[in-house]
Amino acid sequence: MKVLDKIDTSKDLKKLSLKDLNKLAVEIRKGIINRVNAIGGHLGPDLGIVEATIALHYVFNCPKDKFVFDVSHQCYPHKILTGRKKAFFDNKKLNTCSGYFSPDESPCDPFIIGHTSTSISLACGLAKARDLKKENYNVIALIGDGSLSGGLAFEGLNNASVLNSNFIIIVNDNEMSIAENQGGIYKNLEELRKTQGKAQNNFFKTFGFDYLYVEDGNDIEALIDAFNSVKDSKRPVVVHIHTLKGKGYEPAEVNKEMFHFQAPGFLDLDLDKKPDFIESYNSVTVDFLKRKKLQGADVVAITPATPGVSGFDTNFREFMGENYKDVAIAEQHAITYAGALAKGGAKPYVAIMSSFVQRAYDQLSQDLAMNNSPATILVYWGSISSADCTHLGVFDIPLISNIPNIVYMAPTNKEEYLAMLEYASKQNEHPIAIRVPYGDIIATRRKDLTDYSKLNRYKTTYKGSVVALIGAGNFYHLASEVKDYLKEKYEIDATLINPIYLTGLDIATLNKLKFTHKLIATFEDGVVSGGFGEKITRFYGDSDIKVLNFGAEKIFSDRVSLEILYEKFHLTKELIAGDIISSLQ
Amino acid sequence: MKVLDKIDTSKDLKKLSLKDLNKLAVEIRKGIINRVNAIGGHLGPDLGIVEATIALHYVFNCPKDKFVFDVSHQCYPHKILTGRKKAFFDNKKLNTCSGYFSPDESPCDPFIIGHTSTSISLACGLAKARDLKKENYNVIALIGDGSLSGGLAFEGLNNASVLNSNFIIIVNDNEMSIAENQGGIYKNLEELRKTQGKAQNNFFKTFGFDYLYVEDGNDIEALIDAFNSVKDSKRPVVVHIHTLKGKGYEPAEVNKEMFHFQAPGFLDLDLDKKPDFIESYNSVTVDFLKRKKLQGADVVAITPATPGVSGFDTNFREFMGENYKDVAIAEQHAITYAGALAKGGAKPYVAIMSSFVQRAYDQLSQDLAMNNSPATILVYWGSISSADCTHLGVFDIPLISNIPNIVYMAPTNKEEYLAMLEYASKQNEHPIAIRVPYGDIIATRRKDLTDYSKLNRYKTTYKGSVVALIGAGNFYHLASEVKDYLKEKYEIDATLINPIYLTGLDIATLNKLKFTHKLIATFEDGVVSGGFGEKITRFYGDSDIKVLNFGAEKIFSDRVSLEILYEKFHLTKELIAGDIISSLQ
Repeated sequence: MKVLDKIDTSKDLKKLSLKDLNKLAVEIRKGIINRVNAIGGHLGPDLGIVEATIALHYVFNCPKDKFVFDVSHQCYPHKILTGRKKAFFDNKKLNTCSGYFSPDESPCDPFIIGHTSTSISLACGLAKARDLKKENYNVIALIGDGSLSGGLAFEGLNNASVLNSNFIIIVNDNEMSIAENQGGIYKNLEELRKTQGKAQNNFFKTFGFDYLYVEDGNDIEALIDAFNSVKDSKRPVVVHIHTLKGKGYEPAEVNKEMFHFQAPGFLDLDLDKKPDFIESYNSVTVDFLKRKKLQGADVVAITPATPGVSGFDTNFREFMGENYKDVAIAEQHAITYAGALAKGGAKPYVAIMSSFVQRAYDQLSQDLAMNNSPATILVYWGSISSADCTHLGVFDIPLISNIPNIVYMAPTNKEEYLAMLEYASKQNEHPIAIRVPYGDIIATRRKDLTDYSKLNRYKTTYKGSVVALIGAGNFYHLASEVKDYLKEKYEIDATLINPIYLTGLDIATLNKLKFTHKLIATFEDGVVSGGFGEKITRFYGDSDIKVLNFGAEKIFSDRVSLEILYEKFHLTKELIAGDIISSLQ
Repeated sequence: MKVLDKIDTSKDLKKLSLKDLNKLAVEIRKGIINRVNAIGGHLGPDLGIVEATIALHYVFNCPKDKFVFDVSHQCYPHKILTGRKKAFFDNKKLNTCSGYFSPDESPCDPFIIGHTSTSISLACGLAKARDLKKENYNVIALIGDGSLSGGLAFEGLNNASVLNSNFIIIVNDNEMSIAENQGGIYKNLEELRKTQGKAQNNFFKTFGFDYLYVEDGNDIEALIDAFNSVKDSKRPVVVHIHTLKGKGYEPAEVNKEMFHFQAPGFLDLDLDKKPDFIESYNSVTVDFLKRKKLQGADVVAITPATPGVSGFDTNFREFMGENYKDVAIAEQHAITYAGALAKGGAKPYVAIMSSFVQRAYDQLSQDLAMNNSPATILVYWGSISSADCTHLGVFDIPLISNIPNIVYMAPTNKEEYLAMLEYASKQNEHPIAIRVPYGDIIATRRKDLTDYSKLNRYKTTYKGSVVALIGAGNFYHLASEVKDYLKEKYEIDATLINPIYLTGLDIATLNKLKFTHKLIATFEDGVVSGGFGEKITRFYGDSDIKVLNFGAEKIFSDRVSLEILYEKFHLTKELIAGDIISSLQ
């Protein structure tokens, strides 16, 4: 009989022997591997935290005691122990839980969490509410070494350390961020590991925390002892545990970055086989940056700890050398740093996910835009998607395009993208953001000779009448489909426009449309609210032209299939055409 | 003859004797006091940094060596020494320079800077650009102890500490933020001061910085020695200097918070005289929060180090006790913490300036909105103004209102504001943001009995026809003026609507307007781009109704008078009426 069969809630854990707890760890690992191999997900972080999660649930009483996991991508063992094991072992029920904390699933998940460096601040709020209400329970924030580099983690530490009550921080030190750790504090963590926590300089003690070190963070007994010693502590304390990322699955132990997150089917991967080259927007970006370096440009490719998103693999990093900079999980620093690099005469390119660029709004506005620094921000994964609600890529257009001075461009194919990268490399007038196209590469095979320094000039790719379709970025192709469909089905010969610029209007083109068109439809692959299309609608507010804006509704969709979302948002060619026809009538 | 008479640029400083340098400090103080007394500005920070600025310019060569001052509100002595002294001594020329770094004024100001905690990251960018270009100069980041609490400062420290080249951080420790410092690292700074920098635990050394302590940070000779010893350093180094905020003007030395910033005429203030009570939106807020505490609610009044903005004075802080929390300059933490407090069953109210709420977009979205935490965010100073470009209050509507789930409300008078505060205190459904009215209090003297839980119901305060004016928040009153003017001048009997909600449309009301109105005008006291009005325009995009959106253009205005801005943005009743009339024709 499996030990897990005896476990429905974490209470059942408390009756187990140490031997059974260790068997349980083996079983949990199988569940993690099974799930990730079946539907993809985080592997290394979850394999590494198995023993610590068992010990946490053994010592503390969830949900009375509150666990707050940073990013919560390491919550798989926690979910297995809190009523959700079928989502790991029963391949018909894999989708019954998400890969992150989800209060809808269990009271053991106090928050929806998906971005880094928030756990300590969230836990501070719970602890303060507890104290005000004179309640009595443990508040435990779990944070990885990688997440410590984000500024909010520091703000949390600064505040947590002066709490006059129970507050336990578990620092899960697996010597890795998503890629390698970057920055000075990691030397201190190394020193602490080397000295079994006894180093004279101790980052955590400088805040005033009590401090405890556990060398083998995958030893259940040692962890239980440590957690028992801080349970019900009346002071803020840091328990620094040293774990092995990927533990128990050798390829993940060896290649920590590759196995941080895996797509389905990784068990069948031939790790020795070099994958076939497929051209992509990542490979185009990488080739461009390498070429710039070879040409002697002072280019700096910057990532906030997510090099994989933009194809900045180890080969690229080695090639770029001093021209590559991973700033750790520190999006604010990435943008401010890039702004200053550009002012200093270098050519920075920040590669950042749509979902994470929003972590640096103030820096985009003050340090980049207000200073008119000619840095370039490459926004990846900006698209409506079936992602978790914490990782949607639909908010970057309203976020960026309402800031003065930034020129936000949306290429629709490889050649436009390359021409924009070149333009960005040569201009010194504005901050440039480029919404990197999402999905498979689309190539025209004709070099784009557009002069992008002439801002806000739309490309009219087909001149028709009555209806004009303005499709930005990824959704230019949707607009193009709609054009064909309107022709075929309704014999409407619609105009098709690629606006290129998300931040400025082509007044001349828009004015001309007034004479020959009755209706303008805009398309953007993101939320309509505050976005690109509304600015066009405002332009025509004063006229007799009708305007329809197509894009996403302002909601946090959560793992909803594209098919359902497109239906809901009226983003199929049939629904769009229907809306246009009924508006024309 | 004054020493200053010999100084046109900082080069002239290098010839002076120590005696003259000390005389110079006295003269500079007079200039600071003269300017602030005449036009207002930062006093304490500038009085405290006089000697350090003199020493910096004595040792380093500006603009070849680069100074990056955090917030740059302590730049007055720097400006006096770099060609801008007339703006401090000649009362006809006070407005020839701003109170912050301004690259337009001098090459000695490398960036526009006005928000905290950015200096180290900016300096990192300059240092990296220098190294890539194989240039040779010193990069010096100056940061106050108060600014250290912001997460970006930490991200900067983490990255700066691993630079393999010249990088000098001056930590200007005056034992104060704007108000008192908050958090664990300040205990470490205290320990460092007490031990003359020799304490075993050293926050800066944990990153790997070389470290130097100067006990008397107002002693020019000691500072020159210290700066000389780190000049041309090939490694990142922190020089921790202990200064006296407000030095040389006794009231500022004694009452550091009050004299952090002063309005004009402070020299004539009778400090012993209690100011007359004038009711204000601050006093309304403060009274409300105190009442809630008395009623036994688990209210938490939160400020990110700017208690003065919301009237959270020392009396209030004492009264609130455990129900008051200054989280230090840490806007991200403030929002995330509030979100968790609300989830934990407490009632947090974050009082934050419009210009600073943008420092926490990701937290507003992920930790607050996505979790639907019933916390309340009070947004102050949200208004078009003649402020410095770094402190504009015009971007909060696009920032907040395009995030799902948040209910952003704009009261137009005291009674509405109070009713909304009450509503926020009782509801547990959504995050609430309230745009606190800007300016003098407006009171109806009739209790507002609206049920605000019925979301997105506009108040039609006058029913007319043809033209409907929808005026949000502060600009409801502008819309009301326009209504009267349209009647008087053009005999148009316009409808007047107070929309209350910035985040949702009153579909029923908007639909009804279609039958009796030809034109809708929206009014918002902020940028139109991505804001409130565009959503109304989108609603009518499909109809024959014309819509005009009035508000600010998307620009970073910089100390431009309201009169000029209103003219430029078409926000006078005459210009608005003109636009409406020409649109109706």
